[in-house]
Amino acid sequence: MGVSGCGKSTIGELLSQELEIPFFDGDDFHPQSNIDKMSSGVPLNDEDRHGWLVTLNDLAKSELPDNSCIIVCSALKKSYRDILNTGIQNQVKWIHLAGSFNQILERLNKRENHFMSSNLLQSQFDTLEEPENAFVVNIGSKPEDIVEKITNKIKMKSEFGLFGLGVMGKSLSRNLAQKGFEISVFNREEKGTEEDVAINFKKAHKELETAQAYSDIEAFVNSLQTPRRIMLMVNAGKITDLVIEDLIPFLSDGDILIDGGNSNYLKTKDRYDYLKSKQINFIGVGVSGGEQGALIGPSIMPGGNKETYNLIKPYLESIAAKDANNLPCCTYIGEEGSGHFVKMVHNGIEYVEMQLLAEVYTILKAMGNNPDEIANILESWKPEADSYLLGITIDILRKKDGDDWLVNKIVDKAGNKGTGNWTTIATAQLGAPSTLIASALFARYTSFYKEERLLASENFNINPSSLDLDIQDVLNAYQFARIINHYQGIKLISEAGRAYNWELNLSEIARIWTNGCIIKSDFMVELIPILKTDDNILKHATIINKLKALKPSINKVVSQCILNELTASCFSESVNFLNAYTTSNSSANIIQAQRDYFGAHTYQRIDDDDTGKFHHTNWN
Amino acid sequence: MGVSGCGKSTIGELLSQELEIPFFDGDDFHPQSNIDKMSSGVPLNDEDRHGWLVTLNDLAKSELPDNSCIIVCSALKKSYRDILNTGIQNQVKWIHLAGSFNQILERLNKRENHFMSSNLLQSQFDTLEEPENAFVVNIGSKPEDIVEKITNKIKMKSEFGLFGLGVMGKSLSRNLAQKGFEISVFNREEKGTEEDVAINFKKAHKELETAQAYSDIEAFVNSLQTPRRIMLMVNAGKITDLVIEDLIPFLSDGDILIDGGNSNYLKTKDRYDYLKSKQINFIGVGVSGGEQGALIGPSIMPGGNKETYNLIKPYLESIAAKDANNLPCCTYIGEEGSGHFVKMVHNGIEYVEMQLLAEVYTILKAMGNNPDEIANILESWKPEADSYLLGITIDILRKKDGDDWLVNKIVDKAGNKGTGNWTTIATAQLGAPSTLIASALFARYTSFYKEERLLASENFNINPSSLDLDIQDVLNAYQFARIINHYQGIKLISEAGRAYNWELNLSEIARIWTNGCIIKSDFMVELIPILKTDDNILKHATIINKLKALKPSINKVVSQCILNELTASCFSESVNFLNAYTTSNSSANIIQAQRDYFGAHTYQRIDDDDTGKFHHTNWN
Repeated sequence: MGVSGCGKSTIGELLSQELEIPFFDGDDFHPQSNIDKMSSGVPLNDEDRHGWLVTLNDLAKSELPDNSCIIVCSALKKSYRDILNTGIQNQVKWIHLAGSFNQILERLNKRENHFMSSNLLQSQFDTLEEPENAFVVNIGSKPEDIVEKITNKIKMKSEFGLFGLGVMGKSLSRNLAQKGFEISVFNREEKGTEEDVAINFKKAHKELETAQAYSDIEAFVNSLQTPRRIMLMVNAGKITDLVIEDLIPFLSDGDILIDGGNSNYLKTKDRYDYLKSKQINFIGVGVSGGEQGALIGPSIMPGGNKETYNLIKPYLESIAAKDANNLPCCTYIGEEGSGHFVKMVHNGIEYVEMQLLAEVYTILKAMGNNPDEIANILESWKPEADSYLLGITIDILRKKDGDDWLVNKIVDKAGNKGTGNWTTIATAQLGAPSTLIASALFARYTSFYKEERLLASENFNINPSSLDLDIQDVLNAYQFARIINHYQGIKLISEAGRAYNWELNLSEIARIWTNGCIIKSDFMVELIPILKTDDNILKHATIINKLKALKPSINKVVSQCILNELTASCFSESVNFLNAYTTSNSSANIIQAQRDYFGAHTYQRIDDDDTGKFHHTNWN
Repeated sequence: MGVSGCGKSTIGELLSQELEIPFFDGDDFHPQSNIDKMSSGVPLNDEDRHGWLVTLNDLAKSELPDNSCIIVCSALKKSYRDILNTGIQNQVKWIHLAGSFNQILERLNKRENHFMSSNLLQSQFDTLEEPENAFVVNIGSKPEDIVEKITNKIKMKSEFGLFGLGVMGKSLSRNLAQKGFEISVFNREEKGTEEDVAINFKKAHKELETAQAYSDIEAFVNSLQTPRRIMLMVNAGKITDLVIEDLIPFLSDGDILIDGGNSNYLKTKDRYDYLKSKQINFIGVGVSGGEQGALIGPSIMPGGNKETYNLIKPYLESIAAKDANNLPCCTYIGEEGSGHFVKMVHNGIEYVEMQLLAEVYTILKAMGNNPDEIANILESWKPEADSYLLGITIDILRKKDGDDWLVNKIVDKAGNKGTGNWTTIATAQLGAPSTLIASALFARYTSFYKEERLLASENFNINPSSLDLDIQDVLNAYQFARIINHYQGIKLISEAGRAYNWELNLSEIARIWTNGCIIKSDFMVELIPILKTDDNILKHATIINKLKALKPSINKVVSQCILNELTASCFSESVNFLNAYTTSNSSANIIQAQRDYFGAHTYQRIDDDDTGKFHHTNWN
């Protein structure tokens, strides 16, 4: 349906070819009297139309027992549509080709030999009663796109699929549905452990009313418009490969698999290459924000082929968090596994930020504060050092469990799920020393030796004495270490960009980390302009001046911790790193001499630095 | 040749079958007069023998134009052999089957119907003039073994092959040759860069006189006895795989490839599996000791199949260094890549020991000492802390370059060749925090940012003030950090053993590290008995007491370094590690709470530790 000139005949014919069902143009069924009237410029009245509409209704009824069919007819009034619907209400799907008066006028003026003059158009618009249950398609797109939209609608195809309904998969599905996208969701069916997960999830949330829920892979895949967009939210690792193999038989050329898990960036490259050989597109997407972030807006780090990314961009940008300028916290990162790499380093930075807060807790506790008092101190730091992690740590410290604080009841063995480990490995492989990330990872590992620690605590009997420090010094030390952490993490990303030839925009990466993700902070906002001018934040005057001002405090805090036998590995490492980084002449000359001594590895001379020649000495 | 009863006929016949050439028993060519004489118990005189020997010489001459042949004859005197040799001196190979009088007497007494009585034996021994140029084979072995030995000798086959004549390959080849092994050596021929390497190497060293030098792979392989023992001494990495592919076409079932490079232990497992599918044995062998160690006796760490190892054991044990009890510093480590793993950790420990000496140098220098003074201080530490690396550092510090010390002329950018990197990766992957190895690796990486350091040195203008410390405290700190280093390295090996199901003997590993290798030290000797009773040296009373006594010193040294803005990352990390390791209640509870807050990762409760149940809290 639609006013004259909206393209009903063209679209209808194309649609009949696409769906392989008969096409009928309503105009062909007018009695001669009606045609004569229209040709002489006289509009038809409702009496003129009645018999004609009944004819079309009869036509539909006669076709339906065998097959569906397409009938085009302006059908402007509800009363006309009621006649056309008679007896087949539940079987008719109304498609309204809608356009503005000017859009259609322009079209009509271009046509030749059309028997309706354009001055009848206004009366058509005046007559039009908008249908209630029709699928409305704007005529602005190309005919084939309009046909595709209608086809998808008629076939009830979703535009986006979510595979795996764990914590993150569920949150992202709801987020997509809340943004108005038509989605299909899938979860496997496992007797006893995972029963009816998808259907129960759909039932539990109002926004999923029109979502399609599946536990059968083939049905799930077939429920999606092509090229299919399927986001995998499964446990990173072998499961990702198994799921890909399960999906492949049902996919078509050009479909897009989006890996939203914390996959290893090198694996993402391998999977990209593998799927490319099967004409399937693959995008590795880092998603940060945890359960809540995924629901209300995560930070999203997509990496892979740019053209493929453009096909999923509207979805990812819609569900992403928004930054202070209301721009989505989602940006194309670069080729290959760069999205997963950046997400991995995000998590590495997160490891350190968490460890630094744990060390702050250790220090403030050793100064005699209870969890509530520590929370109050951290609360007072917000103007200078606010961050998501600071905020949740305050909540955590205030949580009670009976008469005690809940933190006092938690076993001190910290878990890890791979990304801190991988960041440490990447730092070793790329030669970019993210010493704090390694230190935070190792602190978790050491925490895991709980039994050995208990035994060692007895054997060594080290009892940290109470600390006497200024709170401001502790805050300064914390701020100092955080700057070094961010320097090292960003440096690692920048070195990876160089090593893998990714064209990374570090400032944009900082921008999409200002909201939605776990490491969002006031400091991250400060880094956006800094990274526009310099890849290396330690070269930037603002940062240099900050660190210089904070250094005396961290020197004090760390040396006191050492003397009082208190562990503060990341604090300690941050100050050691800056000391090493600012040393013009280090003792690495000794190491070079040793290597040359026992292994003839040679060395360079300072008075021969220009030629870069390598020398060997017989030392003994 | 050989006295009657030595088995000449038996061996000669077997040999003729093996070599597919005719066999002649000299005794069959005696004239009747000689036979009669011997049968009646009268010894032959030289006149009796003359004609007979000429007959045999004629026989050899008549055979030679077509083929070689085997003629057995006692040929006890030089004069007899001269007759037999006449005109064919350069073509005759003499093989002397030698045995003691009693060996042969016993044999003869067992024989029946032999026409020479055993009372003639003594006269045979009296007559025997030992030949000068014969290949002497003792008759004690089984006939087939004797035949194999002779076959190999006749074919001039070597028992051991060395592939790749770099610094280490050359030293190991000379070491093997000096131990009396017959070896073949190979080096590729590359116009302009590697020309006549093998042959020139052979010419340059007396001990290689009988070695065979090749630049053709096929000829090299064919020069070796089967099963062939070929040790690869090429650059670890892709080259190892390329070389293996080059060799495969010429190898036979059961041949043994020995990878003596610093290969990644996981690669060694892959190569083992790959070569197994081709019926080739593969052993990964760690070799430590540098150029000099390889020549006079390295420490050797072989890993792989035990039966295969037994086939190369005599060679490796012969060339290895000897420990204080004169036992070889070579022991079977375990299955798969365990040899290369242990060598890798050896190098990791080495990285730290080197870095600690560099930090000692930094500190002693900041205390106002010049290199000679530092050398003297280190010299005075020998009674308490002697090690190979301490010794060479003293030599290094004393080396002059014109008016200055040579160390002052060396560019402070420390190189690395992979093993420190891999150890850090292994530590991350296995969850066993070797924090000092990571720290030493990262110190080298940071040293490599020379230009950034120079700029940062100006920007930050950090000028370490001079240190005021007691020398004994510095020594104590050094000893403390070394203990933590050895604990962490050995712990990593022990965790790998558990993870990969290798049955490792840690005490044996410490023992083979007491000589020949770079990390040999007095402390390593102390560890042998400690590791017999405990895998974890931090549980051992001796070590606990040492660390307790040393701790106040390292606390002092590290806190002073921090306050004076001097880098001492490994010292610092060692004290932080022990503080963390001896903490009964760490702040990892905060990290677990944070993880549960944003990611619902759950946590365990101290009042519910028995069930190990995981809890989740709604924190906000």
